[in-house]
Formats: sequence, structure tokens, C-alpha cells
Amino acid sequence: MPTPRDVKSFIRTIPDFPQPGIMFRDVTTLFQDARGFRMAIDQLLHPYAGIRIDKVAGLEARGFILGGAVAHQLSVGFVPIRKKGKLPARTIEQAYALEYGEAVMEVHDDAIQPGDRVLLVDDLLATGGTAEAGVRLIEQLGGEVASTAFIIELPELGGRKRLEALGLDVHALCAFEGH
Amino acid sequence: MPTPRDVKSFIRTIPDFPQPGIMFRDVTTLFQDARGFRMAIDQLLHPYAGIRIDKVAGLEARGFILGGAVAHQLSVGFVPIRKKGKLPARTIEQAYALEYGEAVMEVHDDAIQPGDRVLLVDDLLATGGTAEAGVRLIEQLGGEVASTAFIIELPELGGRKRLEALGLDVHALCAFEGH
Repeated sequence: MPTPRDVKSFIRTIPDFPQPGIMFRDVTTLFQDARGFRMAIDQLLHPYAGIRIDKVAGLEARGFILGGAVAHQLSVGFVPIRKKGKLPARTIEQAYALEYGEAVMEVHDDAIQPGDRVLLVDDLLATGGTAEAGVRLIEQLGGEVASTAFIIELPELGGRKRLEALGLDVHALCAFEGH
Repeated sequence: MPTPRDVKSFIRTIPDFPQPGIMFRDVTTLFQDARGFRMAIDQLLHPYAGIRIDKVAGLEARGFILGGAVAHQLSVGFVPIRKKGKLPARTIEQAYALEYGEAVMEVHDDAIQPGDRVLLVDDLLATGGTAEAGVRLIEQLGGEVASTAFIIELPELGGRKRLEALGLDVHALCAFEGH
């Protein structure tokens, strides 16, 4: 009988990408495997059985892959949260800090209705900066963040603590030490 | 009884985006609607009942939303085809012409196995330049393009003819005149 594999075992580590000293956790090897991808979506949604979710929001760009699958599985709509300048209609924006400088995320201002319960998804929770920007955008439109869900968390970078300090629920399938 | 809606009715047109004279066809209003998103995925997959598909490949970035949902529905793996510099492991690349200059798409060189039958998806078929680059990447890895599937085609821009001239099957849910 084949050895059972967990989600983490499908993730590939690439040293020194995108810059020296970074261990990049590559989920493409998880997503390209039929069993791995299905396992990841199933486990990502496992805690939400019986929970009301009206929409799934995904962070550009790997969060779109996950978010499309998760929204489809839940039979709800999908909302892309994108880097500034990519969305064609009227948006609201939220700046967040990067290691050097800052970046801006946007969402269409009609993408979420007041009272919508939104599941925010991304592949990776590192410092939580992008995720927090996503949360603020959802809340600014009157949405409620039902939960945040990630494939990977990097506990040393503090993203979980940062989101939990905002009163948010955080679900991650696996953790890697280092960054 | 509510009036039945088709996929096209969920798509919003934004004049002059990203530049003056362009009518941008915005699928975010389709994706963010629960009924619209489900209808789009169902209709995208309708022609492939009983057809062998081993993997779904999606073109960055809106093709990731669709591709994630379609791969999940088919219970197969998803392969991202990305703009140059975004994929962390070893890639192959393919240049394609833009209106001014050229761009390069990449795929991981282990993302597709020889003999894999791959469904290529994107939101929009315009000139077919990006789609053709995707097809060439899949074929370079020994994959076979089972079909290409889009939400929208812009017939005046000739993408369908270009892909069909390569012997490819093209499936689009709706068409818009103009570009």
C-alpha cells in the first residue's frame, strides 16, 4: 500500500528565491498534483462545515488559484483582491508595509455587500501584511471576515499573532520554520 | 419567476480601460456572483464530459481563478503559466508579441508530464498571443492540449482562427464585438 502523504509533503522548497537567504515554499508542486490539490482544498474547508460563508476573497496571484477552487466548492462567488492598477472599475485601496517601502491592494467597491460573510484565502501567511490589507478592504465595504485560511504559515514571521490580535480566526494547513 | 440570465449578462464593460478606446470586458462581476460563477464553470466544462483531461493550465492572473475552479471540479491538478520571473523553480519560457514589443510566459519544466492531456483556460481570447504561448509551453513539455476554453472571445481580433490554425479546439462561452 502506498505511504499516505500529507499536504506539506507536496510542497517544494527553493533556496534563495526571490533573493539570497529566502527559502521559498513552492505550492505549485501541490497544486499540480491531483491528489495534493484536492486534499488541500478539502482540508482548507474542513473547519467551515456548517459555517455561513457568502463569498471567498483571494489575494493576487496564488490566492486566485485556491480561491477559485474554494468558492466553487462552496457554491459562492469569488472576489479578487489585487495589486493597485489591475482592477478596471471603481475600487477602494489599502496600503501595507513591505520590507522596504509599501504596496497597495485594491478591491472593487461593489464586490462585497454589507453583511457578507467573507472567507479570505491565500497560499502563505508570513508577516500577515497583505492579509491584513485584505481584511481591512473587506471590512471597509461592510463585509465580515468569517475566517482567514492559508496552505502554509511561517510562525516566526508573526502573521497568525497579527491577525488573531485583530480578532480574526486563522486556519493554516502546515507550518515551516525559518523564512 | 425571475428572468433567466446567461453568462454574458453578468459581464461588465468598462470603457477606456486600461487605455482610451479599449472596451474592457470585466469578468469580476461574473465571478463574484454565486450563480454566475457556477454557471460559468459548468458551461466551460460542458463540452468535455467523457473527454480525458489530466491537468488544467491557467494563464496569469484571471485564468488562475477559473483554472483553480475547473481543476477542482475535474479532480485534476492545476498548472500556472506565469509572466517571466514569478515561478521559483526551473522553467521553460516562450516569448509572444504585444501591440508594442513582446512579453514572455513561463512554466515549471516539471509541471506537465509527457502524454498529459491538458485543458488550457483563460478568461478572454483576444488575439490569441498569450494562449498560443501557453500552448507552445505545454507542447514543449510533451503535453497534448486537449482543448482551450475561455469565458469571452473577441472575434474581430482573430484569436479563434489563430488557435484553430494550429489544430486546436476552441471553446468560448460568449463573444463581444469590438475590442
